Amino acid sequence: MSETLYKVDISQSMDKQEIPGHNRWHPDIPPAFSVNPGQQFKMECLDWTDGQINNNDDGTEIRDVNLNRVHVLSGPVEVKGAEPGDLLVVDILDIGSFDEHPWGFNGIFAKENGGSFLVDHYPEANKSIWDFHGIYTTSRHVPGVKFAGVIHPGLIGVAPSHDLLMEWNRREAALVDEDENRVPPLANLPDEDSVVLGTLEGEDFRRVAKEGARTVPPRENGGNCDIKNLSLGSRVYFPVYVDGANLSVGDLHFSQGDGEITFCGGIEMPGWIELKVDIIKNGMEKHNIQRNPVFQPGPMDPQYSEYLVFEGVSVHETTGKQSYLDAHIAYRNACLNAIDYLKTLGYTGEQAYMLLATAPVEGRINGIVDIPNACCTVSIPTAIFDKNILPKKGLD
Amino acid sequence: MSETLYKVDISQSMDKQEIPGHNRWHPDIPPAFSVNPGQQFKMECLDWTDGQINNNDDGTEIRDVNLNRVHVLSGPVEVKGAEPGDLLVVDILDIGSFDEHPWGFNGIFAKENGGSFLVDHYPEANKSIWDFHGIYTTSRHVPGVKFAGVIHPGLIGVAPSHDLLMEWNRREAALVDEDENRVPPLANLPDEDSVVLGTLEGEDFRRVAKEGARTVPPRENGGNCDIKNLSLGSRVYFPVYVDGANLSVGDLHFSQGDGEITFCGGIEMPGWIELKVDIIKNGMEKHNIQRNPVFQPGPMDPQYSEYLVFEGVSVHETTGKQSYLDAHIAYRNACLNAIDYLKTLGYTGEQAYMLLATAPVEGRINGIVDIPNACCTVSIPTAIFDKNILPKKGLD
Amino acid sequence: MSETLYKVDISQSMDKQEIPGHNRWHPDIPPAFSVNPGQQFKMECLDWTDGQINNNDDGTEIRDVNLNRVHVLSGPVEVKGAEPGDLLVVDILDIGSFDEHPWGFNGIFAKENGGSFLVDHYPEANKSIWDFHGIYTTSRHVPGVKFAGVIHPGLIGVAPSHDLLMEWNRREAALVDEDENRVPPLANLPDEDSVVLGTLEGEDFRRVAKEGARTVPPRENGGNCDIKNLSLGSRVYFPVYVDGANLSVGDLHFSQGDGEITFCGGIEMPGWIELKVDIIKNGMEKHNIQRNPVFQPGPMDPQYSEYLVFEGVSVHETTGKQSYLDAHIAYRNACLNAIDYLKTLGYTGEQAYMLLATAPVEGRINGIVDIPNACCTVSIPTAIFDKNILPKKGLD
Amino acid sequence: MSETLYKVDISQSMDKQEIPGHNRWHPDIPPAFSVNPGQQFKMECLDWTDGQINNNDDGTEIRDVNLNRVHVLSGPVEVKGAEPGDLLVVDILDIGSFDEHPWGFNGIFAKENGGSFLVDHYPEANKSIWDFHGIYTTSRHVPGVKFAGVIHPGLIGVAPSHDLLMEWNRREAALVDEDENRVPPLANLPDEDSVVLGTLEGEDFRRVAKEGARTVPPRENGGNCDIKNLSLGSRVYFPVYVDGANLSVGDLHFSQGDGEITFCGGIEMPGWIELKVDIIKNGMEKHNIQRNPVFQPGPMDPQYSEYLVFEGVSVHETTGKQSYLDAHIAYRNACLNAIDYLKTLGYTGEQAYMLLATAPVEGRINGIVDIPNACCTVSIPTAIFDKNILPKKGLD
Repeated sequence: MSETLYKVDISQSMDKQEIPGHNRWHPDIPPAFSVNPGQQFKMECLDWTDGQINNNDDGTEIRDVNLNRVHVLSGPVEVKGAEPGDLLVVDILDIGSFDEHPWGFNGIFAKENGGSFLVDHYPEANKSIWDFHGIYTTSRHVPGVKFAGVIHPGLIGVAPSHDLLMEWNRREAALVDEDENRVPPLANLPDEDSVVLGTLEGEDFRRVAKEGARTVPPRENGGNCDIKNLSLGSRVYFPVYVDGANLSVGDLHFSQGDGEITFCGGIEMPGWIELKVDIIKNGMEKHNIQRNPVFQPGPMDPQYSEYLVFEGVSVHETTGKQSYLDAHIAYRNACLNAIDYLKTLGYTGEQAYMLLATAPVEGRINGIVDIPNACCTVSIPTAIFDKNILPKKGLD
Repeated sequence: MSETLYKVDISQSMDKQEIPGHNRWHPDIPPAFSVNPGQQFKMECLDWTDGQINNNDDGTEIRDVNLNRVHVLSGPVEVKGAEPGDLLVVDILDIGSFDEHPWGFNGIFAKENGGSFLVDHYPEANKSIWDFHGIYTTSRHVPGVKFAGVIHPGLIGVAPSHDLLMEWNRREAALVDEDENRVPPLANLPDEDSVVLGTLEGEDFRRVAKEGARTVPPRENGGNCDIKNLSLGSRVYFPVYVDGANLSVGDLHFSQGDGEITFCGGIEMPGWIELKVDIIKNGMEKHNIQRNPVFQPGPMDPQYSEYLVFEGVSVHETTGKQSYLDAHIAYRNACLNAIDYLKTLGYTGEQAYMLLATAPVEGRINGIVDIPNACCTVSIPTAIFDKNILPKKGLD
Repeated sequence: MSETLYKVDISQSMDKQEIPGHNRWHPDIPPAFSVNPGQQFKMECLDWTDGQINNNDDGTEIRDVNLNRVHVLSGPVEVKGAEPGDLLVVDILDIGSFDEHPWGFNGIFAKENGGSFLVDHYPEANKSIWDFHGIYTTSRHVPGVKFAGVIHPGLIGVAPSHDLLMEWNRREAALVDEDENRVPPLANLPDEDSVVLGTLEGEDFRRVAKEGARTVPPRENGGNCDIKNLSLGSRVYFPVYVDGANLSVGDLHFSQGDGEITFCGGIEMPGWIELKVDIIKNGMEKHNIQRNPVFQPGPMDPQYSEYLVFEGVSVHETTGKQSYLDAHIAYRNACLNAIDYLKTLGYTGEQAYMLLATAPVEGRINGIVDIPNACCTVSIPTAIFDKNILPKKGLD
Repeated sequence: MSETLYKVDISQSMDKQEIPGHNRWHPDIPPAFSVNPGQQFKMECLDWTDGQINNNDDGTEIRDVNLNRVHVLSGPVEVKGAEPGDLLVVDILDIGSFDEHPWGFNGIFAKENGGSFLVDHYPEANKSIWDFHGIYTTSRHVPGVKFAGVIHPGLIGVAPSHDLLMEWNRREAALVDEDENRVPPLANLPDEDSVVLGTLEGEDFRRVAKEGARTVPPRENGGNCDIKNLSLGSRVYFPVYVDGANLSVGDLHFSQGDGEITFCGGIEMPGWIELKVDIIKNGMEKHNIQRNPVFQPGPMDPQYSEYLVFEGVSVHETTGKQSYLDAHIAYRNACLNAIDYLKTLGYTGEQAYMLLATAPVEGRINGIVDIPNACCTVSIPTAIFDKNILPKKGLD
């Protein structure tokens, strides 16, 4: 039996929890609790926005989210005996929602607040609520689809070392300098507003609040990778950068499409996660895993046998400008092509967009060498629809 | 029974075939033959390099490939009754190698001649030969792996209209103008050297040779998409841009990893393909498929239950420069991380690189909104190795 | 959110629950509660033996089980508006174990008490305890294996009509008459000992106790089908024989191999199940589903890409007697062949036997016409073992 | 490249081939050719009836098949160095049909000539022709379905020793003695009519013709196991009973449902098979594989995500007689239930019966201990139909 070693009260924000979690990365955030190698335990998590979204039809909530409060993480967990140079092995044994919160949300962020993958096409905020029916979900805002969740933590990672943190802040500041006034911004730099830092206080709090890296991007430590197949049943190998590893987790998704394209993002929910941890001594050198986690996906993803696949190449969709092997533009075009098609089934563009963000669609890099065009695809499982969505060619 | 309507002699180059195929895209290349909607037929194909690579251990062949001769395509096939605005439905019923050519090749192109995805890390040419054993392949140059091929045409597409062709040439020329002397180049513009244009002659030949778009990039018409899962059993919907559609095919791959990262690219082979074609009248508007094919993958891909997955983010691997949601860089880092790991198993970097290019590895765009880092992954099926490649944590 | 409409206290036996369930089939057992078509709800269940097995190493518990107490079922649920001739549609939305009971058990029944599929080879009682680790399970009694559960109700069914019940009792009595003193018996006839019949009392209780059919066999109403792939996410269509349908469920399995060969049987556990019900009026005639449920399996079973498969044919394993297309004997031989092989890996026969009963092995009827031998197979997924179990031929 | 070491002329019967194969099992049938361990080669095969069935609509051909001519096998292949006690490792590298024979057949055998699984329900002969379209097949006799073939040899096996052969003849004769005049018979005993025995002549021919076991049943040596997943890509481990192993193969199926229920049986075809052989010395004892082959299925079977599953239990469908854990009757009832359902889609019983025999349906032994009823299921992949076959409950 796994004891719940980190609990949350979902009626309270993260800074009000008995042991507050954190919403910045910093090696000096103290562990919330400790475990031994081989130990199995549960942690509870708030949703990534810290409870800013409600189960209603009001899209302005997404427009007005305070992004400085994200992502509220549970932890850090100190793993006794873990040292820099080791690999931390994390088994994601199970994940679930709370009985009292049987729903999640997806949102298109507005251009002025966060933006999204298709921000120039869909600059306004929008929201969809997804109800859970056991392993399935449906939405009153995106009718006609039902699917089983590939439930996963959008964010799981270990604390950076001081050196690594400095490197992050350096390189991201340099990027912002390239276009400081861009909307949406090129990156989010450290910001003291709405910081939560566990039990830190006083001078330490102020210092860490100034230095702490934002949780939005995935980085060497894992973090907000938003990989839908890093799901229940997975085993993950993290490089360890600080004593105790300091593992944190949050941003649980009931489901997500590859790319998490609306930014708010998958089907976001509070919930619990069951973990087991272990250590491979000197594993970073032994296995040459120096940066970024490596993982084995879980065995329980729903299997689909039929997909409809949309291609995109790296030519700008409105200007016709040719880019060089740009997989970002190619995937955007694949998604836009898919939305164009889904519109012929009766969906609005916003509904189709949120469908691609939430359903278990696959995003692939198919060709990345055929100059000058990258080719990317988005694959939609046809079985999630309550009608046949294929072009009308009978079986013949 | 499917009649073979296009035959090749693999001891001869494409311009010497009874009915030469073509290696440029142009609406004025005359059809090699015609079929009716509903017809089922076979076509034979040369390998994409037009026979420049031999079954030996000599990597310099890759270094010296004449890239103006690629890709030699079989066709075009005129589908009677197809008109601009229709969708051409192509069923890929089967694909096979020739009994007398039971092998294929993979090559890392040299920086000076073509380049590849990891060109700055592996600037020298290299080659591996892959022997076919029924549905399986192995290589004396990359020992310890064996896998079933996900056999597919790297290149399949329809002829562009004159307008579309002009647009291609315009946008690609503009790109080259950005850095005309880059090595490798940003794009390949029309080049009269080594052109093959079916039965065209005289003035028409000279005009088309000057205008004909290169076959390297995937574009609106399909073309060199190099999508490994557009494999045997697939149904593809192509937008039609010219009367008769003018379908061409070539660049058969016995297998390929997502991204085709060495550029020469999957396991390249000559062979045959069995097709069935049909037409959806006015399908482009009806289904809102205006550009790029849409397809349903075939049902026969090998299924793997265990993968080892490597992540990468969009920070330059040597300079540490932060890019903005650049999936190209993120996938490159995922591949470099995988190669670092594979080296601990005893592979050279070049072997690991060619393994990622040939084996059925999956390339995913996982997160494309978490500013400033895109997150991409490359997933390697562990069952292709003759030993356990996982980090040494027992089952526990 | 699904309300829990049937609760159990796992420290109490079924007859002591607030609303007792039942352990016989009879149309006159009153519903424990009612639901409307379209309603979603949860039910809690005791383990099938009514709590007779404990988490220890004592196999005599299996030897001494009182089989008159099985299977204790939760329900019946009255579905308002369901009438004979309808189909009852049951969605199995989710299933789980109780946090306070994170383990299950498997047992080989003794020849004198229940018997099992290989009773002549393994006549003694034995037991294994399986610990749950999120979606995975391991056993201290069968080391070296770990697998994800295909969690399912071993028993789910609707009440029989009076006529159908009489037919069951008639045909089973006739079978017992063929060899009344057989050990183990040919069938279990109604027996008043240890009967639990919901809230029935007095004369009704005595009558129903005398008539009520035992729950062991699967029959026209579904019942103890023990189908491992009738698992979470499934949709089941039941013929309705009485007003309200009177659905009951129990005998939850964390996992089971096809055949449930040790009889006690899969990995048995108490737990909860989330259901949604609906009605297809006159569905029995409309869809020609007159007897036995029809179902669509759930999408979340673990996928394995590699199996080791053992064949068996219908020749008696010790006497050499040839039977005519007997799939029972053929499957028994397949299982015995598998056990013989597993012994070479260091397992005892009993361990191998319990492994086949609990792990997600597949039992197939492959050939049933090739007189005189039926051919059956048992397929073992190799990934459940912590070592390579294949015969030692390298990859070549 | 695999050389074709055994060729057939499909316009000739087996006894007229350059090197005749055989249609009986006997250790004294001389090898048709020899190979070395590690060798890869191809063999051609006639269809199992020796060419008695034509591509027409005439079902009487099935009624009149001479069953003494079956199964005509290619081989035996002597594997140099193989000795009794070894395991013969056979890789099924590939299988294909002949270009000039792009079709196969399925037939319901008549009660008077062979019979079938549902002989009392369908006593008359019937036939369906299946056309091949690359990896797919369709039938003018069973419209509305299309599926990819799980291509496999219905029959593959090694020669028995003299002792084993005598045991076969003994036990099968004893079975026939139980009801000598049964129609269809309980077993086929040796019969000199229509015997083909390779190059044997004179006295040897006459002796072997008298003793040679019929090829219909699967036995210890493998033989006519009709296992649909022993398909292309499989590795099979055969016990070796004679020097050289003497491997034979035939009865190729383009596809088959589990059970091969119409007896003639899958989609029968002539074609070729590519094999590789190797030896594990003393493997029978080392791996405890004493009888019946063990195999790993191939990786290329089509994957389906949605099935409709029909249950059956062991109560006689017309008399209501209860049998004891009889999986044969349970599977028969599952098939009859499926046919009842398929009739509501517009199929005749005969069409539905042949559909279950040819399509990739799965037959499972689900519960084999729940006295007195065995529970078996037949699972039909819904994607093979050109319309939605599920009971009409929308997605909800």
